[in-house]
Amino acid sequence: MNTLTLYPLSNYSFETKEPQPEEDPSVNARLQRLESDYHEHGMRRTVEGLLVVHEHGHPHVLLLQVANAFFKLPGDYLKPDESDLEGLQTRLHYRLGPASAEEGGESHKMLAEEKRGPGDWEISDLLAQWWRPNFESFMYPYIPAHISQPKEVKSMYLVQMPERQVLTVPRNMKLIALPLFELYDNSVRYGPSLAAIPHLLSKYNFIMS
Amino acid sequence: MNTLTLYPLSNYSFETKEPQPEEDPSVNARLQRLESDYHEHGMRRTVEGLLVVHEHGHPHVLLLQVANAFFKLPGDYLKPDESDLEGLQTRLHYRLGPASAEEGGESHKMLAEEKRGPGDWEISDLLAQWWRPNFESFMYPYIPAHISQPKEVKSMYLVQMPERQVLTVPRNMKLIALPLFELYDNSVRYGPSLAAIPHLLSKYNFIMS
Repeated sequence: MNTLTLYPLSNYSFETKEPQPEEDPSVNARLQRLESDYHEHGMRRTVEGLLVVHEHGHPHVLLLQVANAFFKLPGDYLKPDESDLEGLQTRLHYRLGPASAEEGGESHKMLAEEKRGPGDWEISDLLAQWWRPNFESFMYPYIPAHISQPKEVKSMYLVQMPERQVLTVPRNMKLIALPLFELYDNSVRYGPSLAAIPHLLSKYNFIMS
Repeated sequence: MNTLTLYPLSNYSFETKEPQPEEDPSVNARLQRLESDYHEHGMRRTVEGLLVVHEHGHPHVLLLQVANAFFKLPGDYLKPDESDLEGLQTRLHYRLGPASAEEGGESHKMLAEEKRGPGDWEISDLLAQWWRPNFESFMYPYIPAHISQPKEVKSMYLVQMPERQVLTVPRNMKLIALPLFELYDNSVRYGPSLAAIPHLLSKYNFIMS
C-alpha cells in the first residue's frame, strides 16, 4: 500500500477536441449560480482527478491551463444524485476522453488498446477535501469553526494512470505536466489547493516504470 | 475508511516528568551528528506521531513546545535496525507515557485503565514523508530531482487517540493543542511541515465523540 506506479510522460499522446468554454462568464456569475443551486439542492459537491506521470524520475502532475490563465485539475461539480466516483469517471471522460464520433473523428490515429470509455479511469485514494464556508471564493482544507452548513465541498482523488493512453484536450485548454518542485510552496501562482499537492503525494512510494 | 474519531481535549489529563533535554546543543551539532551517523549507518529515519483531539467540535493537534521556542511533534529518529511502527511506539511512550517508577511515582493519580505501556499506542495511516537532501536544515515533501541519496526521511503517522488518557510531559516541554485554522497557511510560525497538517487531515471525516 501507499505505492503508486508512474509511467514516463512520453508514454502518453495528446490530441485535441472541440473547446469546452467555462459554464459561467465570471467568478461572480459562478458564485451566483452556486447560491441558487444551493437553495435548490443543498451543498455542491465537486470532484477532481490528480493524474501523475514522471519525467526523468521526478513526479509530474497533469494540470489544465485555461485560456493561458488559471490552472485547474480535470473534474467538475456533480449533479445532486451522482456519487463521487461515478461522477468523476464521467467528468474525466468528458474532459480528457476521446472526442465523440460526431466531432469528426479527430482520434482516428488512436490504437484500439488506447481507446477508453467513461468507466475506464482507475480512481484511487481520496487525497484532500476543501470546504467553501460562504458564497465566496475562499475555501479551506477543514470546516471552519462555527460553520455548520458549508456551501461546497471539493474532493481530490488520485488517479492511477494506465501505462499508455491518448488524452484528448479541449482546444481552449492546455494540458501541462508540472513537476512537484514547481508546485511546492507556490500558492501565489497556483493557489493553495494545487500548491498542497506535493504534501498530499509525499506518503506514496513511487515506482518509476 | 478515512474516518477518525476525535474525543474532547477535556477527556485527557496531563502530568509532568523529568526533563528530556535536546540531544544536540545546536542545529549545527545536530547536522554534524547526522553526517557522522550517515557515514556509519546510511540514511537516518525519523518518525513522528500526529495526535488529534477536538475542542468545541474543531480538530486540534497536540504539539510539543520546547523551551518556549520551537514546536515539534512527539517522535525521534530511529536506530538503524528499528522498524517505523515499533520505533514510534517506543518514542511516544518515552515522550508522553507515564514516568518510570524510579522517578518517584508522579503518576500516582492515574486510573488503572489509563495506564499505558510502550505497545499501546494505536498507530494508524502514514500521512506524509519529508526528505533531507543534504546535511542542511531544508527538507522537502518529495525527493528533489538529481538527489539519489537523501540523508534523512521523516515519516509522520496518524495516531488514533483512546477515549481517555493521561499524557505525561517532560518538564522542559509544554504540550499544546492547536486548532487547524491556526496551523493552516502559517509556515512562517510553525515551519512548512507542521503548517501542512490541515492538508494532510482534510481527507478524514471526523467523528466528534
